[in-house]
Amino acid sequence: MLLPELKLRRDKIRALMAQQNIDAAIITCNVNLLYTYGQIVSGYLYLPLHAPARLFLKRPNNITGEHIHPIRKPEQIADLLKENNLPVPQTLMLEGDELPYTEYMRLSAIFPEATIVNGTPIIRQARSTKTDIEIIMFHRAAKAHAAAYEQIPSVYHEGMSDKEFSIEIERLMRLQGCLGIFRVFGQSMEIFMGSVLTGDNAATPSPYDFALGGKGLDPSLPGGLDGSVLKEGQSVMVDLGGNFNGYMCDMSRVFSIGKLTDEAYAAHQVCLEIQEKIASLAKPGVACEELYDAAIDIVTKANFADNFMGIDQKAKFIGHGIGLEINEAPVLAPRIKQELEPGMVLAIEPKIVLPSVGPVGIENSWVVTAEGIEKLTICNEEIIQL
Amino acid sequence: MLLPELKLRRDKIRALMAQQNIDAAIITCNVNLLYTYGQIVSGYLYLPLHAPARLFLKRPNNITGEHIHPIRKPEQIADLLKENNLPVPQTLMLEGDELPYTEYMRLSAIFPEATIVNGTPIIRQARSTKTDIEIIMFHRAAKAHAAAYEQIPSVYHEGMSDKEFSIEIERLMRLQGCLGIFRVFGQSMEIFMGSVLTGDNAATPSPYDFALGGKGLDPSLPGGLDGSVLKEGQSVMVDLGGNFNGYMCDMSRVFSIGKLTDEAYAAHQVCLEIQEKIASLAKPGVACEELYDAAIDIVTKANFADNFMGIDQKAKFIGHGIGLEINEAPVLAPRIKQELEPGMVLAIEPKIVLPSVGPVGIENSWVVTAEGIEKLTICNEEIIQL
Repeated sequence: MLLPELKLRRDKIRALMAQQNIDAAIITCNVNLLYTYGQIVSGYLYLPLHAPARLFLKRPNNITGEHIHPIRKPEQIADLLKENNLPVPQTLMLEGDELPYTEYMRLSAIFPEATIVNGTPIIRQARSTKTDIEIIMFHRAAKAHAAAYEQIPSVYHEGMSDKEFSIEIERLMRLQGCLGIFRVFGQSMEIFMGSVLTGDNAATPSPYDFALGGKGLDPSLPGGLDGSVLKEGQSVMVDLGGNFNGYMCDMSRVFSIGKLTDEAYAAHQVCLEIQEKIASLAKPGVACEELYDAAIDIVTKANFADNFMGIDQKAKFIGHGIGLEINEAPVLAPRIKQELEPGMVLAIEPKIVLPSVGPVGIENSWVVTAEGIEKLTICNEEIIQL
Repeated sequence: MLLPELKLRRDKIRALMAQQNIDAAIITCNVNLLYTYGQIVSGYLYLPLHAPARLFLKRPNNITGEHIHPIRKPEQIADLLKENNLPVPQTLMLEGDELPYTEYMRLSAIFPEATIVNGTPIIRQARSTKTDIEIIMFHRAAKAHAAAYEQIPSVYHEGMSDKEFSIEIERLMRLQGCLGIFRVFGQSMEIFMGSVLTGDNAATPSPYDFALGGKGLDPSLPGGLDGSVLKEGQSVMVDLGGNFNGYMCDMSRVFSIGKLTDEAYAAHQVCLEIQEKIASLAKPGVACEELYDAAIDIVTKANFADNFMGIDQKAKFIGHGIGLEINEAPVLAPRIKQELEPGMVLAIEPKIVLPSVGPVGIENSWVVTAEGIEKLTICNEEIIQL
């Protein structure tokens, strides 16, 4: 990672720290280190408001450089700051929504005189608008993601289960360069690579906060595919995470086994219409709730509201920020007044589930530009017959 | 999950709570809910010392039953206990090493009069000795894991990279039923499915706390395979996580491209000898450090100490507990006085890395019985030529 890019990211965080009179941050959670240091390490990035960042490093042992201090434990940070004539912080920011309680308390105790502030909201806010380089990373990921999806029909064969189909698509994604790992903020979501949902399984409520649920294969991972055989007249939605370079690109496409009902094609067109409407409205300054409300308005008029974003248990959003994690700010949900800003990257995913058919709809990743939003994931959006 | 099994697990936790005068626990982290409720849900298991457990459930919305209370937010728990004539806890245990700081504080505030205790060590201690049913789950996982590994030579072809080889092995694992998801305690380890390491990449230091490192494909996941082509005269070690039912079975096997040096075969035999020695020593009452020291003794006499468990950066353990997470208690490491107990399940992994050859050695999963330890992962242990 180039230093100017890291400086830019750190300064975005610093600007928000300054607003709250925070004079230093300790950053140690993996994705936040990736953001501010350019790679994941085991250690602590100490980020003062008015001095260069320093890395207090546990592992790996082969990184050296100015402002890098090998340590065995975080308690050494206080002495090392002193040795380098750096002031101790008065107000210190820690990753309070991410660090385990005991870790947070341990790091707090390093500076017993300091006021400790939860810095997770600040870091998430900084991360929510992407730099030009991050947007380039997303473009690359989206291209690879689409290239893998284009090959999906080639791996289908009659009589496959959702699991067998998923395994072949996972392989396509991996061959295309997908790193596989699926990073999530918090513990509200867990899944392997993503979900492949067919038929009524798409309506099965799950504990996880994804757009659609699914029973899963095991009580230890109750989401996504459940081993159903792909049947004539049913749809199958592929929604795998596109992590090709750390950035979680997000895209769903729908396939059909034979022909679906006319209603299914109509419902799919409603989702495309919602996507088009949102794309026409979305631009900097527009509130997230406006986009959600526009979607609900269209789906209600089309008489598919009862099947929108699930049936018995519905997702209460139609899109979400994406970045180093799949669930970044903002959320396109009711009553969210937060406004779009240039550089935000969003997954927008209007989906309808039809009993005995399955899921239809669309999901693409988009970047908010100065004037509107631009689609990243370019790939056939119609229902593709397998 | 059968209720008697869940009661047994909850009572193991309760027995440890009683020793510390803790009168209730709130359990909400995914693996701990899986352990105590038998499936992952979004919610809170309230576990009193002297009354049946109650589930305060957010999602999914299709679970009902006695002692199950739908809620929207955890603050409702206090009122619901009152309505059900249950006392508020005096000393409440929360998952302090796992819950984010802000979540911990939020749950603490539900019972402002209670003393709050970190319950993670108690739950991990309970989880470290497996029930008979958990051991059956491990036997099943080990059988599937071995069945996938037996097919590994069939997917190799000349000129493959470690990445291409890994992708085909991942597919074998998935077809055998592997759920894919790799669960870890804490943030010291991250990887997709596991690692496939060849040649000098096996000695590359990584930030993660695995037995061996690897550069990885990207700074966002700096561990494991790095895209190296599998070359004549090099070894390749396959170490994928065997999560077939929630339990993380662990097994490594070594393959060779053509013949390796005599030294490599000798080093491999030293690892097998270490494994045999540990298997002969290990039984309830034996301290973890004794097993570690026995391994170091053998490898030192064999003159491979400098290459044991890495070269420039070494793992400081030769084995670890496994269960719902890959890194459970105990750890087979120096100065660990903790004694083995019946029902513990261990991964034991003596490994040696040889420059310009790669990794050799072995890893199996074992269960501690009344008299010794029993191997779970039965599969050819020699270096298999591809």
